[in-house]
Amino acid sequence: MKQKLIFITAIIMSIFFIYGCNNQNNNQYEGKIILEEQGSFAFGGTVKKASGEFNGYYLFPSSNGQTYHSDHGYAFYQIPINARKYPIVFLHGGGQSAKSFETTPDGREGFQNIFLKKGFSVYLVDQPRRGRAGRSSVPVTINPTPDEQYLFNFFRLGFYPDFYDGVQFKKDEETLNQYYRQVTPNTGAFDEEVVSDAMSELFNKIGEGILVAHSQGGGPVFYTAIKNNKVKSLVLYEPGGCTFPFPAGELPNSNNITMPTYLPIKEISLDDFNKLAKIPIVLYFGDFIPKEHSENPFLEEWRLRIELMKIWEETLKRHGGDIEIVMLPEAGIHGNTHFPFSDLNNEEVADLLYKYLEDKKLN
Amino acid sequence: MKQKLIFITAIIMSIFFIYGCNNQNNNQYEGKIILEEQGSFAFGGTVKKASGEFNGYYLFPSSNGQTYHSDHGYAFYQIPINARKYPIVFLHGGGQSAKSFETTPDGREGFQNIFLKKGFSVYLVDQPRRGRAGRSSVPVTINPTPDEQYLFNFFRLGFYPDFYDGVQFKKDEETLNQYYRQVTPNTGAFDEEVVSDAMSELFNKIGEGILVAHSQGGGPVFYTAIKNNKVKSLVLYEPGGCTFPFPAGELPNSNNITMPTYLPIKEISLDDFNKLAKIPIVLYFGDFIPKEHSENPFLEEWRLRIELMKIWEETLKRHGGDIEIVMLPEAGIHGNTHFPFSDLNNEEVADLLYKYLEDKKLN
Repeated sequence: MKQKLIFITAIIMSIFFIYGCNNQNNNQYEGKIILEEQGSFAFGGTVKKASGEFNGYYLFPSSNGQTYHSDHGYAFYQIPINARKYPIVFLHGGGQSAKSFETTPDGREGFQNIFLKKGFSVYLVDQPRRGRAGRSSVPVTINPTPDEQYLFNFFRLGFYPDFYDGVQFKKDEETLNQYYRQVTPNTGAFDEEVVSDAMSELFNKIGEGILVAHSQGGGPVFYTAIKNNKVKSLVLYEPGGCTFPFPAGELPNSNNITMPTYLPIKEISLDDFNKLAKIPIVLYFGDFIPKEHSENPFLEEWRLRIELMKIWEETLKRHGGDIEIVMLPEAGIHGNTHFPFSDLNNEEVADLLYKYLEDKKLN
Repeated sequence: MKQKLIFITAIIMSIFFIYGCNNQNNNQYEGKIILEEQGSFAFGGTVKKASGEFNGYYLFPSSNGQTYHSDHGYAFYQIPINARKYPIVFLHGGGQSAKSFETTPDGREGFQNIFLKKGFSVYLVDQPRRGRAGRSSVPVTINPTPDEQYLFNFFRLGFYPDFYDGVQFKKDEETLNQYYRQVTPNTGAFDEEVVSDAMSELFNKIGEGILVAHSQGGGPVFYTAIKNNKVKSLVLYEPGGCTFPFPAGELPNSNNITMPTYLPIKEISLDDFNKLAKIPIVLYFGDFIPKEHSENPFLEEWRLRIELMKIWEETLKRHGGDIEIVMLPEAGIHGNTHFPFSDLNNEEVADLLYKYLEDKKLN
């Protein structure tokens, strides 16, 4: 009897310790980011060499015989413990940097932390001629040009000075302050070939992965996926201001549709176009985009862009493409701006992307 | 007897579980970076507003009535679990970005990871008009100008094309490739007032901390510490190309010394100078800097800079300053370039800094 009692005590003690042990783990590290590794590197780019001979006996020598590395991209990566198979590479839009995917303007976690915590390795890119990848092979002049009310309208926070009703953007001064200071200039002309050449080198370096792009980044990622079959899927948030490729002979007829002011289209070979038909592609758009003509030139531009992208979608489907255009409001997600991944409901937006990757067996 | 046996078994089982439990923790997370939090934000800066009225009915409106945020800095921060009291803020040098303190050109961990793993919160800055903090209140023209052999010499990798014997730099093509691509241009003139104004705002935001600067960053951090007493210590790696402040009436007499080509000096008020005498300041210099005149113009420039800084050191000591100039070779650390924090022996260089912070009770 007494023996039984002692033995049972022993078992209970043991169970207690095991429980306490696991509990300790769970509590101590719950919600923390635990990294196997993090770091940064340059990828792709070109090298030029000036003619003549370098003379090292001058403190300020001429360029003669000197080299110049430029047109590379920059990536900061983080690999969580027990990372999922495919990393996610994030490419920013026009006038932006990797910052787009970090802390949101209102100070919450962006897609960088959200997808790290979902177990994905994340690569945040500054594209060639932007941010920390500033060295460009072409010259540039940058003038300080006030344009923030234009951005306010084009990015659909509202029609300045009014915010749209229900917009998923925190309407305080510091949020707008952070939002505007996120903008950073080109240090050389935006060039879809230069960016996609470098991005293809990034995938050669890191292997197969998922490529997520915002706005103007949409163009370069098409050409990255065409150049490199290690791109397993394209996720585009509000592509625009970039070139949409159609197969030779299948350009939409601009007599039948009203072309948007800035969504250029171009012909590429059918072979190249078919490469886009081989991977799952999804386009996400936020709220406040009208279905009928609008007197608001910014909303009208977005409406016309989407009309054109629907023709592009049909074309890709005709060639067997796995392509979806998701209008977030139709998926029950309302109030989003041009930056769904940093809007107030970005966790919801992230969950929708996660479900997509799950459906495509890419998680 | 039998009871005793069972009871002892129970105790042993328990001990085994506790041991197994701790072991599990240690092995699973050994050498990993465990973050309480990470994120990024803009700090400081100015806002301009163009005269006139904004007209939102144009897709490409004029600047009339629009605003422009600029001259802010950008910081990416990481706070490890159980962080030490004082965060370390890292400010890069000329033509560089926060990348300086991330992965080294040869692919090892930089000061960002090294000091995270030592338990410090780290803030990596892109200064105003650089990298991701690119919006400038002044215009700029950037021309691609080959200059890398000049950098090779000035940064003391060697005398091009020869590396110095024993230099702590991996002599392969990819290391040089990464090293050169780390360079990123100003998107507006370098301005020590603009940078130090923003840096002071950073310390207002994060509170007391240690400020580590490289090269040209040395100047702005003097003025940051003068503007903000939350700066608890200044750590300067190879300051140069920046302005050294002397108290009014105590400028070194350029008749008695040979001034370096580019280490400007200026007079500030005694009150301001005395603020620098209130905090521990350390300057670290690498190897290959001669004590006597050199025909190598780059080494000669470094020699003259250090002669001038020794006068500055005496001046600060005369006013009660806690200041040290450490020539790494004299501390038994050899082969360092202009980038000791990313050289092959950067762990050793980091340990020396850690000991310094320990001595000053800042760890």
